[in-house]
Amino acid sequence: MRIGIPLYDRFTALDAVGPYEVLSRVPGAQVHWLAAAPGPVRTDNDMLGLVADAAYEELPDPEIVLVPGGLGTRALLDDERILGWIRRAHETSEWTTSVCTGSLLLGAAGVLDGLDATSHWTELETLERFGARPSDQRVVEQGKVITAAGVSSGIDMALVLTTRIAGPEIAQMIQLGIEYDPQPPHDSGSRHKAPEEIVERLLALTRGSP
Amino acid sequence: MRIGIPLYDRFTALDAVGPYEVLSRVPGAQVHWLAAAPGPVRTDNDMLGLVADAAYEELPDPEIVLVPGGLGTRALLDDERILGWIRRAHETSEWTTSVCTGSLLLGAAGVLDGLDATSHWTELETLERFGARPSDQRVVEQGKVITAAGVSSGIDMALVLTTRIAGPEIAQMIQLGIEYDPQPPHDSGSRHKAPEEIVERLLALTRGSP
Repeated sequence: MRIGIPLYDRFTALDAVGPYEVLSRVPGAQVHWLAAAPGPVRTDNDMLGLVADAAYEELPDPEIVLVPGGLGTRALLDDERILGWIRRAHETSEWTTSVCTGSLLLGAAGVLDGLDATSHWTELETLERFGARPSDQRVVEQGKVITAAGVSSGIDMALVLTTRIAGPEIAQMIQLGIEYDPQPPHDSGSRHKAPEEIVERLLALTRGSP
Repeated sequence: MRIGIPLYDRFTALDAVGPYEVLSRVPGAQVHWLAAAPGPVRTDNDMLGLVADAAYEELPDPEIVLVPGGLGTRALLDDERILGWIRRAHETSEWTTSVCTGSLLLGAAGVLDGLDATSHWTELETLERFGARPSDQRVVEQGKVITAAGVSSGIDMALVLTTRIAGPEIAQMIQLGIEYDPQPPHDSGSRHKAPEEIVERLLALTRGSP
């Protein structure tokens, strides 16, 4: 089972590495890191490089497509190179998935038209441009298309997907293997739970980002 | 504030990338990826390479030391190159931290002698070799030394650390920024919560690993 993760300049590392850490443990799975060209691809803050092992076109037909988000999505909403790859891969994929603003790339590729979908909470309304119905669920399943909310939600999405493709026991084993028994010290991980002042401060920062 | 993350062959990606995604968002933070030599370092399953930007010795004195775990720790328990770096960095660090079996490297470097500490649940007892008292808490704080349990626990540890160094508001903003509102589809992320059969099956697999 081949899992294709397309990287691009200014992606968000945890969007990709969270689901990778789960899905790479599914028996028979092989994760393939793709980019416009093989080699290191830098994250949104330029503090980390992940190595792409192949160009997009070298893996046109993965069984699972997993598109991470990041600030870099904004520059790719009319980039036919990556959008064409997503569109082509989606034709034959068993599952087409995204994390965070990766859903904007699915949308721009035409994958989300008429579907419920989610994204990072600050970009939910942007999904409407692509004919999708924004949902504030953390993981949104629509047939073979699964979108996840911001950044860390990819871990939950990957456990849901693992349950679908390999059954609940394998998903539970992987959850135990990565000791995913979350205990954050605060309860501010969604706009509905964070103090209003925290939401406003983060929105102000987000509006100022390039 | 410089955060030094030492990589080595066969590390676990999420151990490092989870805390990176949190700590890189702390105002003034800069994450530095280190290894025996600059260049790509491959993960435990050989499916992913992260780029180390410098050799260990190029950053002898980060304010925060963060040691990830992985199958590769076993080969490093008497490797003076990385252990010497940890020992030296710990002398001047403000915080010395680990995720998963990264605590075995802290232990082998002499950092955990007489302290409570944690690790991946399958390796908790190994900590006793290094004079540490195994704890099954998810995040264990002992002065400036913080150890975290398996793989995904590094995200929680990093939010605890962020609260200490930057205050609860910044920690809450970062938690909201990465939308960390965990909703795993199962409740099997600790040996105390997973069905006994799942624990036994995973232990059997772990014993068979190289």
